[in-house]
Amino acid sequence: MEKLYVIKIGGRVIDDESKLAGFLKDFSLIREKKILVHGGGKLATELALKLNVPQQLVDGRRITDSETLKIVTMVYAGLINKSIVAKLEANQCRAAGLCGADGGFIQAHRRVNAFMDYGFVGDIDGVRDEFLLSLLESGISIVVAPITHDGKGQLLNTNADTIAQEIARAMSRNYEVQLVYSFEKSGVLLDAQDESTVIPRIGPAYYAQLKEEKKIFAGMIPKIDNAFAALRNGVSTVLIGKAEELSDLINNKSGTKISNE
Amino acid sequence: MEKLYVIKIGGRVIDDESKLAGFLKDFSLIREKKILVHGGGKLATELALKLNVPQQLVDGRRITDSETLKIVTMVYAGLINKSIVAKLEANQCRAAGLCGADGGFIQAHRRVNAFMDYGFVGDIDGVRDEFLLSLLESGISIVVAPITHDGKGQLLNTNADTIAQEIARAMSRNYEVQLVYSFEKSGVLLDAQDESTVIPRIGPAYYAQLKEEKKIFAGMIPKIDNAFAALRNGVSTVLIGKAEELSDLINNKSGTKISNE
Repeated sequence: MEKLYVIKIGGRVIDDESKLAGFLKDFSLIREKKILVHGGGKLATELALKLNVPQQLVDGRRITDSETLKIVTMVYAGLINKSIVAKLEANQCRAAGLCGADGGFIQAHRRVNAFMDYGFVGDIDGVRDEFLLSLLESGISIVVAPITHDGKGQLLNTNADTIAQEIARAMSRNYEVQLVYSFEKSGVLLDAQDESTVIPRIGPAYYAQLKEEKKIFAGMIPKIDNAFAALRNGVSTVLIGKAEELSDLINNKSGTKISNE
Repeated sequence: MEKLYVIKIGGRVIDDESKLAGFLKDFSLIREKKILVHGGGKLATELALKLNVPQQLVDGRRITDSETLKIVTMVYAGLINKSIVAKLEANQCRAAGLCGADGGFIQAHRRVNAFMDYGFVGDIDGVRDEFLLSLLESGISIVVAPITHDGKGQLLNTNADTIAQEIARAMSRNYEVQLVYSFEKSGVLLDAQDESTVIPRIGPAYYAQLKEEKKIFAGMIPKIDNAFAALRNGVSTVLIGKAEELSDLINNKSGTKISNE
């Protein structure tokens, strides 16, 4: 099967113009088919502050009232998404910027939670692959903003890591999918303060041991849980590492490889 | 040739939730291929006001400094574009929201003007039809936000009427194109204050006479000039009329038809 990269880029890299430019250059040089999923939380928080819209985060999830939904839609699907597309086009990388509502390609519903109202936050029901397939097959790379919809006209703020995973999973019916979580760290670290302690490979048994020994810091656990879930659902490889080293990361020369073996 | 509607929706309709919903319902019911081009100036002005970014308009064109460019990109390509897409999807109208940078489908350059620096405002060099064609042929309607790019990574604020005209012109190689300017007025009026004075049809000679007698109000002249330019470039019909009466408008039961005859 042909290879497809589904690459999530973390928020802190997006905020740094020169790091982002370097990342997008590396991304443009990938000759295989590719999808980029981005967030942009810091810029959204900054805009909310300027607009006096109070922000509340619970376990890293943004409580999304109607004003906050407007803000994240503007920042993620407007400013960040289209800025990335324009830069990719300048690198001769033909790209289309989408959110999950476009072509109805991500179906989601508003999160139901008995203890907490997250507001307009979406949980994903499924990804339709046809729309993405036809774009990829016509030579276009896809840039995805983390906004979905409920099919009834309501936009929903949705976790970008989860979107990357769900896209990777859906596309694994058609491609050999490499799911890449790229961010400001060099990979999964044994010591969160020491960038030289990257763990090159994590399998299920070692992961259980690391969690047991509390050697993995809390923010990393949902990423790795997502990674194993993706592998169980047909994704070929999951890589975690530094956005600035994207070429090395996808060639397995840096970062952490999560594998079922 | 197969029919394609290229429909521009005016800003005041976008600001009115119930009018917009009615318009989008009519749009969704069009069985032929269709492209919607929108602006959204009032919402952009409101956001600029909240963010204390002074706005300057010259002849209806927004001087676009870098902060204003961020605002229009957020409002047009983010909030308005994706809200429209979500509503169309809810109407079972499969839609993709794009700006001119996506798929590099509109080439533009920053406006050069010896007397006035418009800032990050784009003038259009051309429209690549392949990307739009492949979406339309796969059954997807297209929603276009009036943001373009210069191919070197710079986004540009671009007049939505002009975008609609340039798209109509480019697509007339492949379709019988009906270009529709829909807004809050019933059509081109003999008396700008009286909605019952719609002129049903305007040809070149009659237009010259209307201008000569100063019977057309200034804001309408660029629209009609654009309409004749479109007709000279292969567009089949240009219709101008009320967004709330879209079905009647495209069936030539209301509004003004601009024709070369």
